[in-house]
Amino acid sequence: MSEVKIGPSKELALLKNNYLFSEVRRRTGEFLAENGGEVLNMGVGDIAYPIGRSAAEAMARASLEMADNERFRGYPPEGGYVFLKEAVVCDYALKGVKADCEEIFIGEGSKSDAGCFTEILDKSEVVIFNPVYPVYADSAAMQGVAVRLLDGNKENGFMPAPDALENKPYIIWLCSPSNPTGAAFDKDGLKQWVDFALKSGSVILYDRAYGVFADGAPSTVYAVDGAEGCAVEFCSFSKSAGFTGVRCSWVRIPKGLKVGGRWLGQLWARRQSAKFNGVSYVIQRGAEAALSENGRRESEEVLEHYRRNMRVLGAFLNKTGIWYTGGRHSPYFWIECPKGSSWQFFDRLLKKARIVCTPGCGFGSAGEGFFRLSCFTTEEKCAEAVRRLENFFSL
Amino acid sequence: MSEVKIGPSKELALLKNNYLFSEVRRRTGEFLAENGGEVLNMGVGDIAYPIGRSAAEAMARASLEMADNERFRGYPPEGGYVFLKEAVVCDYALKGVKADCEEIFIGEGSKSDAGCFTEILDKSEVVIFNPVYPVYADSAAMQGVAVRLLDGNKENGFMPAPDALENKPYIIWLCSPSNPTGAAFDKDGLKQWVDFALKSGSVILYDRAYGVFADGAPSTVYAVDGAEGCAVEFCSFSKSAGFTGVRCSWVRIPKGLKVGGRWLGQLWARRQSAKFNGVSYVIQRGAEAALSENGRRESEEVLEHYRRNMRVLGAFLNKTGIWYTGGRHSPYFWIECPKGSSWQFFDRLLKKARIVCTPGCGFGSAGEGFFRLSCFTTEEKCAEAVRRLENFFSL
Repeated sequence: MSEVKIGPSKELALLKNNYLFSEVRRRTGEFLAENGGEVLNMGVGDIAYPIGRSAAEAMARASLEMADNERFRGYPPEGGYVFLKEAVVCDYALKGVKADCEEIFIGEGSKSDAGCFTEILDKSEVVIFNPVYPVYADSAAMQGVAVRLLDGNKENGFMPAPDALENKPYIIWLCSPSNPTGAAFDKDGLKQWVDFALKSGSVILYDRAYGVFADGAPSTVYAVDGAEGCAVEFCSFSKSAGFTGVRCSWVRIPKGLKVGGRWLGQLWARRQSAKFNGVSYVIQRGAEAALSENGRRESEEVLEHYRRNMRVLGAFLNKTGIWYTGGRHSPYFWIECPKGSSWQFFDRLLKKARIVCTPGCGFGSAGEGFFRLSCFTTEEKCAEAVRRLENFFSL
Repeated sequence: MSEVKIGPSKELALLKNNYLFSEVRRRTGEFLAENGGEVLNMGVGDIAYPIGRSAAEAMARASLEMADNERFRGYPPEGGYVFLKEAVVCDYALKGVKADCEEIFIGEGSKSDAGCFTEILDKSEVVIFNPVYPVYADSAAMQGVAVRLLDGNKENGFMPAPDALENKPYIIWLCSPSNPTGAAFDKDGLKQWVDFALKSGSVILYDRAYGVFADGAPSTVYAVDGAEGCAVEFCSFSKSAGFTGVRCSWVRIPKGLKVGGRWLGQLWARRQSAKFNGVSYVIQRGAEAALSENGRRESEEVLEHYRRNMRVLGAFLNKTGIWYTGGRHSPYFWIECPKGSSWQFFDRLLKKARIVCTPGCGFGSAGEGFFRLSCFTTEEKCAEAVRRLENFFSL
């Protein structure tokens, strides 16, 4: 029998596999098989506490509506239900940003939104920080576009400024507060990027997945004047409302944002009409409830756990004198390995402290020599991690 | 203030807008504004009855689990939970097809799955029927690949055979039972395509969204020997379980299906790991319940409404002597306009019978001179439509 003679996509075939988390799992599994006992996982980017009751109950009600003759819903509007868009507009209003329902596109997750968004743009050079969340680079590679990496380091606090770029139009990915470093732009730092984009004709794709932790740093790119003319914002319910397993997100494309004379939102709508069919009614009701007064209070209670973890781990790290960033505006700490490579440190921490961290080199070459600790864990586990780290560093 | 100098994607800019349904809405709205009263919409592809209780209650339970300290779930596995994959494997077993959990990829809708799938293949020529569901052509245009249209007509019953194709590898979209024509391949007709794919090294992308109505026609491409070596299957819960507003789907990529020496499933998994984050736990529990014994019985009760509509409308059309196809293996009837163009007939039917149909030309040039009637409506409305059609055709 003959085989299929269609080949793989050229771009996909060139895409590297990111073996970071599978390699973490492999080494951890090997250690446990040899030594028994348990390890403390401080490498997780997933939630450690459940979602709020309001969101859960709203989804339960909406689920039952779907079996009701009078109340069931068919295909959702591709860009989202108005009830949820209005709740999102309210969320912006609380931040002093005036948005419009038409500018809001509900999605089923920021990874999908961000991963697919550059499909609607021409093949301009893409600016990506190094290290950073791998989705931006993967999607650029799948689009077959050139990438300009901006290296993070101790001097720039892993949040590079646009100084090194030419005065030409780029597609610029910003993630602040940042995954994986936890560092965040202050308003002046973000303003530099907005000013550069306006001057150069660039477009900023702003990932605010961790904005809910920003605590004084800008929690939305639109906190900076002029951003409405150059920036698209990607927002997730994953961390703000614990929705990693529920799946909901939105993109805001301001009305003033035009490419080739057309509002960029029209292009995204056209893409979605061919490759997407809207988010489940059930899920959108949950997201709406998460943005209600009760929903916000319930989410805040959960976020307080992570914030307490951030304070506990931060206080410990301050005692060590080790260089780190993050942990103030985001639940990630990005820490210099006291010696050796990221993987060497990973192995030592696993063996001596039975703690699993994330090797920094997995997020980009400039992450070599660093490791990430995550506060997405319970308070009990975080306290235990600090005890083990105190022993490890002999404090 | 300077404007963004990034342009739109070249392919997206060339993509035509499909104004079919907005034009249908515009003309209907104009008619109602002039004449008042009501119209009967027989143009809908959405469900008219709610989902089953089992699925709704499973989603309600899963929703509440998400707020439970012991039972909440974080990020879902990208390819889907094993509990749902096992239910899908069972669904194949009921059809005599032996599938494996690893071959099943859970998605949030067949439009997303189908619209994005060709991203992982090289830019081989794509074969698309004319007329057909517009997503295949849109996604081909966004990939910038050449399209070979195969015209449907009364002679081939709108289900063309591969005779006209060269003996070279194509990416072939098949939708049987077909949207919009409702026609379906019998096993011999489908076998011609599978044999052609095996001989030419082509890959078949098989959309079985309406398979639940197939009634004797193949309800899965794997009913044909050899399909495991050349065909990917796209399956939706939208029509089978009324999930248009719930959103769930799957893709099966058989283990024997290799491109460039690699299992095609690995390529899809890599694409999904960059651009997708899995389907909501809540929704997957609903889909699992829809595939349970109770869930199937409840869905069947709803499908019987549509099937009765098919019989009622079919009996009427047989009396008219007008040429049509469909309506036996799918809830769509594809009918020759007694005179004039698709839009001229649309206007007459609207004015004289107050019935909204779908003009065939909206699904491709070869649809000109035809119109579609859909049985996705309540039995009451379908009976009323037949009364009006009897008057219209003076029977």
